[in-house]
Amino acid sequence: MNYQAPLRDMRFVLHELFDLSGHCQQLGIELDRDTLDGILEEAARFTGQIIAPLNRNSDEQGCQWVGGEVTTPDGMRDAYRQYVEHGWASMTGPQAYGGQGLPQMASASFHEMLMAASLSFRIYSGLTEGAVLALHRHGSEPLKQAYLSRMVSGEWAGTMCLTEPQAGTDLALLRTRAQPEADGSYRITGSKIFISGGEQDLTDNIVHLVLARLPDAPAGVRGISLFLVPKLLPGGERNALGCGALEHKMGIKGASTCVMNFDGAQGWLVGEANQGLACMFTMMNDARFQVGLQGLGIAEAAFQGGLAYARERLQSRSLAGPVAAEKPADPIIVHPDVRRMLLTQKTLTEGCRMLGIYTARQLDLEHAAKSAPARQAAARRAALLIPIVKAFFTDVGQEVASLGVQVYGGHGYIREWGMEQLMRDSRITQLYEGTNGIQALDLIRRKVLGDGGAELNLLIDEMAPHVRAANALGGLQAMATGVGQRLEEWRALSGHVVEACERDPQESGAVSVDFLAYSAYVLLAAMWLQAAVRAQATLATGSAETAFYRAKLDAATFYWRRILPRATAHREALLGGADCLMALPASDFAF
Amino acid sequence: MNYQAPLRDMRFVLHELFDLSGHCQQLGIELDRDTLDGILEEAARFTGQIIAPLNRNSDEQGCQWVGGEVTTPDGMRDAYRQYVEHGWASMTGPQAYGGQGLPQMASASFHEMLMAASLSFRIYSGLTEGAVLALHRHGSEPLKQAYLSRMVSGEWAGTMCLTEPQAGTDLALLRTRAQPEADGSYRITGSKIFISGGEQDLTDNIVHLVLARLPDAPAGVRGISLFLVPKLLPGGERNALGCGALEHKMGIKGASTCVMNFDGAQGWLVGEANQGLACMFTMMNDARFQVGLQGLGIAEAAFQGGLAYARERLQSRSLAGPVAAEKPADPIIVHPDVRRMLLTQKTLTEGCRMLGIYTARQLDLEHAAKSAPARQAAARRAALLIPIVKAFFTDVGQEVASLGVQVYGGHGYIREWGMEQLMRDSRITQLYEGTNGIQALDLIRRKVLGDGGAELNLLIDEMAPHVRAANALGGLQAMATGVGQRLEEWRALSGHVVEACERDPQESGAVSVDFLAYSAYVLLAAMWLQAAVRAQATLATGSAETAFYRAKLDAATFYWRRILPRATAHREALLGGADCLMALPASDFAF
Repeated sequence: MNYQAPLRDMRFVLHELFDLSGHCQQLGIELDRDTLDGILEEAARFTGQIIAPLNRNSDEQGCQWVGGEVTTPDGMRDAYRQYVEHGWASMTGPQAYGGQGLPQMASASFHEMLMAASLSFRIYSGLTEGAVLALHRHGSEPLKQAYLSRMVSGEWAGTMCLTEPQAGTDLALLRTRAQPEADGSYRITGSKIFISGGEQDLTDNIVHLVLARLPDAPAGVRGISLFLVPKLLPGGERNALGCGALEHKMGIKGASTCVMNFDGAQGWLVGEANQGLACMFTMMNDARFQVGLQGLGIAEAAFQGGLAYARERLQSRSLAGPVAAEKPADPIIVHPDVRRMLLTQKTLTEGCRMLGIYTARQLDLEHAAKSAPARQAAARRAALLIPIVKAFFTDVGQEVASLGVQVYGGHGYIREWGMEQLMRDSRITQLYEGTNGIQALDLIRRKVLGDGGAELNLLIDEMAPHVRAANALGGLQAMATGVGQRLEEWRALSGHVVEACERDPQESGAVSVDFLAYSAYVLLAAMWLQAAVRAQATLATGSAETAFYRAKLDAATFYWRRILPRATAHREALLGGADCLMALPASDFAF
Repeated sequence: MNYQAPLRDMRFVLHELFDLSGHCQQLGIELDRDTLDGILEEAARFTGQIIAPLNRNSDEQGCQWVGGEVTTPDGMRDAYRQYVEHGWASMTGPQAYGGQGLPQMASASFHEMLMAASLSFRIYSGLTEGAVLALHRHGSEPLKQAYLSRMVSGEWAGTMCLTEPQAGTDLALLRTRAQPEADGSYRITGSKIFISGGEQDLTDNIVHLVLARLPDAPAGVRGISLFLVPKLLPGGERNALGCGALEHKMGIKGASTCVMNFDGAQGWLVGEANQGLACMFTMMNDARFQVGLQGLGIAEAAFQGGLAYARERLQSRSLAGPVAAEKPADPIIVHPDVRRMLLTQKTLTEGCRMLGIYTARQLDLEHAAKSAPARQAAARRAALLIPIVKAFFTDVGQEVASLGVQVYGGHGYIREWGMEQLMRDSRITQLYEGTNGIQALDLIRRKVLGDGGAELNLLIDEMAPHVRAANALGGLQAMATGVGQRLEEWRALSGHVVEACERDPQESGAVSVDFLAYSAYVLLAAMWLQAAVRAQATLATGSAETAFYRAKLDAATFYWRRILPRATAHREALLGGADCLMALPASDFAF
């Protein structure tokens, strides 16, 4: 499948909607618009010409395990080498360790491109970036000196070793042990599963961040510590750990997903003892944001695939009479239902792109805004948005990929076309880094109930000016009214939900998934309204790109009239209450 | 994966809701309740013990093509032999050719079991049954004598050769040619793709039904004829046709999907010249009904998989305090959101089972009711229901399979658990036998606009007594009111849609998919109301199976409160109109 980064839309979102240059100034980062656009153009070439062509074969060939060694699919080693040499790996890394320290708002578009070009390829470096964050924030100075530079450059990779067979969502059940040694290091023993990049042939060394229990640790999540356990020890010898097997998966077959066995492997404590989960959680927002971008990237790839086919495939005539009379049939993009599928793909994808960049902005401000109150405000906003971005974007990725298959008809089911691979690859994103059900619980319990809905109301307040701006422009009043009503409905609904959850502890689990989906659809409507305002205003002042801005208005209208109604169903469903979920005894689900 | 046929629910639907014995009497068929229950129990053993265990390997091993010969996965040949020997193949075949002539209402439950146990295995015999129908209705006497008995018994298989690379939905573009010979036969030349069971090693002979054009045929769909083209000619020699390749697919890997090349192969006309499409269409209802059952079968398998895991997997504690205090964590079925997933699986699956048997009843009456008016009325009802059954059941199959994956968390993505296979296998059902988009167009254009909504209104009228019956029973009034309002909303909406489509030809394509989904959710609500009425009435008169009937009431409540709201979103969306689909120029979908 071909992939071409949607540069024009990215520039619209980055510059015209969210003022990247101003954002960089605010953060004290020197990065002007032309430089950033140059980086994105180069990134588009790299992802389109070097990475995307690997993706089909990476699925067919997969990773191979022989005697504990893992071989990645043909071409991936060379692509990874270029990725490191050209500095793509170090884009977001801390400058003190050789990174370029780009804000998330600037790097998110590049990462979206990578996900779109090959999710399997991106997984290796994504995990390394996560490990860098954790180590940078919590590692001791000697550990940072020993590992960070080569991880930031991409020369070494990192992993996150959390899951065990009996401990997935519930890390309290974790059993891997850490035994202190006289020299201050620890011996790590246990088995981890689902470890992305646990073993591979892209880098010489792999730095595992492993959750384990100290001998005297309290039970449950308060007795978990984080350890750095390298594949190669500082002296260069192999550590006592290895990949026992590769998992056989539905997709992302180019990414090695490993069973990792630690047999008294030497490791070093990262952060305080028994604070491992807290250390992990400080990087959770970034990791979950990245998974959200995976959903977005897959969605863009599936939209491009569907659109290309719909323009080329000739089948049946338009209901309103032949459009391409000289051809044996019309291109299927003339059919309203094909357009419904493509516009659903387009508006969900572009909507997530806007919300993604808006969220990246908050992540940057959380880390680097000049004042502490600004950092705290951004942290609250990011915390609210992250579960929505992770769960909704990945649900969108799956839906848009499935629509891609559907546009192709029977051909969508055939591997060579690449559409079904997008469905298989994207399905993991709804499961890992906390299932989407866990994201929804996080949203309702920690982020909404946690402050009685205060931050959510602030977010709604912040969207109100767009409604006013739309009302002030010709042609957008109906949409503005519709979206404005939704925003107030959201406020009222969250108030209702907070009350219901305070009455009955089961309610939070009963409303969670529908509340997240409702929130996401309304939030995307606010983003689309903002895009429409910007497009309308630009057209009013005159632009050479009329078609681009008119398309934004058409897309916003489609979203508001055909997608936003989904919010109603989620609202009605969650108002159905917990009783109808809890009434049926577990023994009586089937007879 | 284990599979156990849901016999209790099947008996509830067949006997308690839709009176199978009375139905058989009406058709003049001798089949009492005990006999049928005995058949279903035997079918449950056969599908659970012989077929289901093949399904995982059939996916891993797939079909192999070597030099034009196709080998099916290990065990399938032997299972197919038993399938034929035990008479399962001939269940629905015409009695004049050795079939058992069972009504669809009796065979549908067996076919659901087969689909659940292994969709790949079922595809071979399902196609044969379709070919038998077409041949039985349209074949000449000599053709029927030569082929039907051995196809009915399953000794020989059949295929449907329609699709060509340039002609999928749009069969007007079909190019395969048929050249008349002096002996009354024809030489067939052309290439067909996506031919299920086009070549296999289960049967000695394969009888292809092929759409092709006669030399003087008019262009378009009025110039297509149907031919019988056997792999082995009557003398036993190989015909000039062969399998050029197997398609590489997302799933159903145990079913061979073939590129079939006809190189002047000898064939015989079935039905009238240039009436090939009409001949095919007479069996379309049955074929599409069977695909609907595929969705239902996969859904049941995924529900069973999800439920078994949710009862065993221990992870986290209930929000209301420990339930299995003696264990390290509670089984995840205690969590409201896991219950939401399981109840969504359960109520969609059981809802489709009810609607499926209701539809099978109409198919039987269409073919065999004693009076012509009764046959015509049933034909109209079946015609209305079939696109809903095909599209909605297969959408449900995909959703319920995806929920199965989600219940398993990360394990759902791992092949060994079997859940991701159900997603991959079921994805084809939304595409073949007319994509679900085509079903939706068929529903709105032929079945609703065709008679100005008259048959739809009759169907709604027929549901009204259930609302009255529910109102007359204690405890069901709120549900009865809710469902009754939906039925009237459906009537009003279809009136609105008919008017809108008469004004603008694009509207039918713009409303189609949402209108089908809306209709299906409301129809399922009527089915669930009927089930609730029956359960409540049975509990009122006393039953030893209180838990079973109470579960029906709980499930009906869940469906009404948590699933039926989806109808609202589809209604709002389709009222959004065609304009917002047609406004964007095809050239401006992406920049």
